[in-house]
Amino acid sequence: MSLPRLYDYVASANCYKVRLLLAQLALPYDRVPIDIFDGGTLTDDYARLNPHRSTPVLQLADGRTLIESNAILWYLASGTRFLPDDPFAHAEILRWLIYEQADVMPAIGGLRFRLVTGRFAPDSPEAETRRRNAHEVLALLDDHLASRAFLVGERYSIADIAVFAYSHLAPEAGIDLSDYGHFRAWLERVTEQDDYLDDLEPYPPNASVVAGKSIYG
Amino acid sequence: MSLPRLYDYVASANCYKVRLLLAQLALPYDRVPIDIFDGGTLTDDYARLNPHRSTPVLQLADGRTLIESNAILWYLASGTRFLPDDPFAHAEILRWLIYEQADVMPAIGGLRFRLVTGRFAPDSPEAETRRRNAHEVLALLDDHLASRAFLVGERYSIADIAVFAYSHLAPEAGIDLSDYGHFRAWLERVTEQDDYLDDLEPYPPNASVVAGKSIYG
Repeated sequence: MSLPRLYDYVASANCYKVRLLLAQLALPYDRVPIDIFDGGTLTDDYARLNPHRSTPVLQLADGRTLIESNAILWYLASGTRFLPDDPFAHAEILRWLIYEQADVMPAIGGLRFRLVTGRFAPDSPEAETRRRNAHEVLALLDDHLASRAFLVGERYSIADIAVFAYSHLAPEAGIDLSDYGHFRAWLERVTEQDDYLDDLEPYPPNASVVAGKSIYG
Repeated sequence: MSLPRLYDYVASANCYKVRLLLAQLALPYDRVPIDIFDGGTLTDDYARLNPHRSTPVLQLADGRTLIESNAILWYLASGTRFLPDDPFAHAEILRWLIYEQADVMPAIGGLRFRLVTGRFAPDSPEAETRRRNAHEVLALLDDHLASRAFLVGERYSIADIAVFAYSHLAPEAGIDLSDYGHFRAWLERVTEQDDYLDDLEPYPPNASVVAGKSIYG
C-alpha cells in the first residue's frame, strides 16, 4: 500500500509545520522534495497538483490532494489529541490558523525571508513596516499567553504548531524578543513536547537575489 | 434567555458574511452596531471583548466570545448543511477560509476600501499592486469554478459565503469581471440561495480621508 506523499520544501516553515505534526503523530509518509527556487513549483505537473503553486501539498494514498499548510494540519490532526473535537474549540483553533497565515507569516516570515535573501535592506521603509507589524503580532501573542500555557484550551494543539512555525524565527528577522517573556516561555513549552523536532533548513544560496535577479520578487 | 450578540459594522463585508449565514440559518440574535471610524473598536471595553479590535465579534448567550469572521462562520455552521462533517471536506473548506483572509480580502476588499475612501489614487503604484493581486485571485477562482458549481463538494457551504463576501465587490474596486465567466456564474448561484440577503452598506462619509486625516491608515 502506498503512503501519503508530502511535496515539501526544506526551507519553508509552512512545510516544517506539517513535518512536525507528522513526527508527533508518528505517521509514515513519503517526502517529495521540491526546490521552489529552481522552478520546482513552476512545472505543468505541479500546477495540476496545486494551482496555487505553493508548498506543501499532501497527496493521500487514494490520490486526493490537500493544499494550504494549516488545512493539512487540520486533516492530519482530526480525531487526535492535537485537535479537540468540539465546535467552540474548533472555532478558536481556526481563529489562530487564519491569524497565522494572514498576519504572523507575512510579518515575521515575510520579513525574515526578505532580509536573509537580500530582498530588503534592514533599514528600508518596507522592512520597517513589516518590523512594526511583527512587533504588533508578538505583543498580541505575548498578551494572550500571559494567562495561558497554550493558545487554545490549555493544551498543545495544531494552533500552537501553526503559530510556532514562523514566530519562533523572529530573531532571524532581527527582532528582539526580550519584551515578550510569556511568548518566549511558550516557545520553550512547544520545544518540550514529545517528538518535537526542528528540521527547518536555512534558505539555500539559490533563494538569494544575485545581482538583482531572481525568479521570485 | 438572552440571545447571541453580534458586534458588527454595517459596511464591513467580514460582518456581512456572518449576517448572511445567520439569516440562512434563521437564527435570532442581537446586533450591536459598532462604528469603527468613530472609535467604536478603540475603547477599553472593546479591547476586553476582542484584543485584535476587529469586527465582527460573536458573544454567545453564556458570555463566551469568538472573533475572526470565518471562525464565527465555522462555529455557527457546525452540524448544519453549511459545513459538511468529514475531515477531508473540513480541510478543503478551511483552505478557502484561509485563502479568503490571506489573499481575497487584502487584494479585492483592501483595494476597494482604499479607492472608495480616498486612501489610494486609482493610478497609484499601491493600487496597481493590489489590482494585479485581485486579478490573480479572480483567475484562480474562475479556474476552480470552471468545473464546479460551488467551491467545495458541489454544495453551497461557508466556503462560498466567506469568499463571496469581498469578491462580489470587485466591480466597486474598478475590476472588470468580463474575463471571469465561471466566477460570475458562481456569484449568481450564490445570490439564488434560499434566504440570500445583501445588506452591506456603503462606507459612510466618516470612513473617508478628509484633508489627509483619519484614525485609520
